Amino acid sequence: MKELEDRILKDGTVKPGDVLKVDAFLNHQCDVTLFNHMGAEWARLFSGKRVDKILTIEASGIGIACIVAQHFGNVPVVFAKKTQSINLDGDQYQAKVYSYTKQKEFPVIVSKRFLEPGEHVLLIDDFLANGKAMHGLIDICNEAGVIVEGIGIAVEKGFQRGGKELREAGYDVRSLAVIKDMDGDKGAIKFA
Amino acid sequence: MKELEDRILKDGTVKPGDVLKVDAFLNHQCDVTLFNHMGAEWARLFSGKRVDKILTIEASGIGIACIVAQHFGNVPVVFAKKTQSINLDGDQYQAKVYSYTKQKEFPVIVSKRFLEPGEHVLLIDDFLANGKAMHGLIDICNEAGVIVEGIGIAVEKGFQRGGKELREAGYDVRSLAVIKDMDGDKGAIKFA
Repeated sequence: MKELEDRILKDGTVKPGDVLKVDAFLNHQCDVTLFNHMGAEWARLFSGKRVDKILTIEASGIGIACIVAQHFGNVPVVFAKKTQSINLDGDQYQAKVYSYTKQKEFPVIVSKRFLEPGEHVLLIDDFLANGKAMHGLIDICNEAGVIVEGIGIAVEKGFQRGGKELREAGYDVRSLAVIKDMDGDKGAIKFA
Repeated sequence: MKELEDRILKDGTVKPGDVLKVDAFLNHQCDVTLFNHMGAEWARLFSGKRVDKILTIEASGIGIACIVAQHFGNVPVVFAKKTQSINLDGDQYQAKVYSYTKQKEFPVIVSKRFLEPGEHVLLIDDFLANGKAMHGLIDICNEAGVIVEGIGIAVEKGFQRGGKELREAGYDVRSLAVIKDMDGDKGAIKFA
């Protein structure tokens, strides 16, 4: 998606350790006009698919998912939580995910009340790198008996293995910007 | 706002310890149609005010704030973060907040790049009880030199002191549903 690529080139920055910062428009400050254009593009890419619900993961996925839901008939958005809370009770689906960014394992939790067996879901997230968080969501979908119709990613780090593994496993992964290569010293970003 | 009150009566549940669960439509599963109606109502309540930006706090505020921004001319949404990360660098505004729900203190962090002195902001959150999180956001706004035009809350626990204190301090707090009283044993909810 050219608009997202252009925005990454304009406002994104590359930091050492293959860190791409897009916090000016995607995951700290949010550009809802851009999110709407992303939603329209995913609606085109996933047209013809049944989407009963959008599933994402806190925190950065939530804003994107809510705006995107408007382009899929205002379906409900469910966001997986990363911490237990007294507000989370009852039966839960739970998977464990290792975060390289935070250097620790965290849980991914969804209340069983919000995933009905047989529902068709679209998974949405801001980033796909090694795919650990997405595999956690897929594990929960499998346990819940819901059908993963597709996976919409804003920015995929194409040089890491997450996207390749998911596509090889048969998932319909649509990333709106795929980074082929980036150079922390020069700040250069190349798209696939 | 009658639609929100009706929804709380229909899908909300009261748990011991004055816990009101609205996770079916507000803060775990999200009803974006309801969020749009809430946005339209806040646009009416805050009409005539200058809103350059919406500021909220992760995670539950993000989806509401992004949908609501569409009713304020698609202004940017900034969400405060609750944990440090390697993705958060550079100069930050930071406040400390005590959470009764999680029984611990956590930081509220906003990058200095996303609050410009002189900007007019609208604060949005899903819940207002004792007001600790909102005071954290206000501290950051004061430090940044931005003007708090108003505070939009989905559900206010009117029997706790947060809303009263903020209004007495001169803030324009507009809560779409104010709980006057709730009874965990009977599951009864009364609105102000």
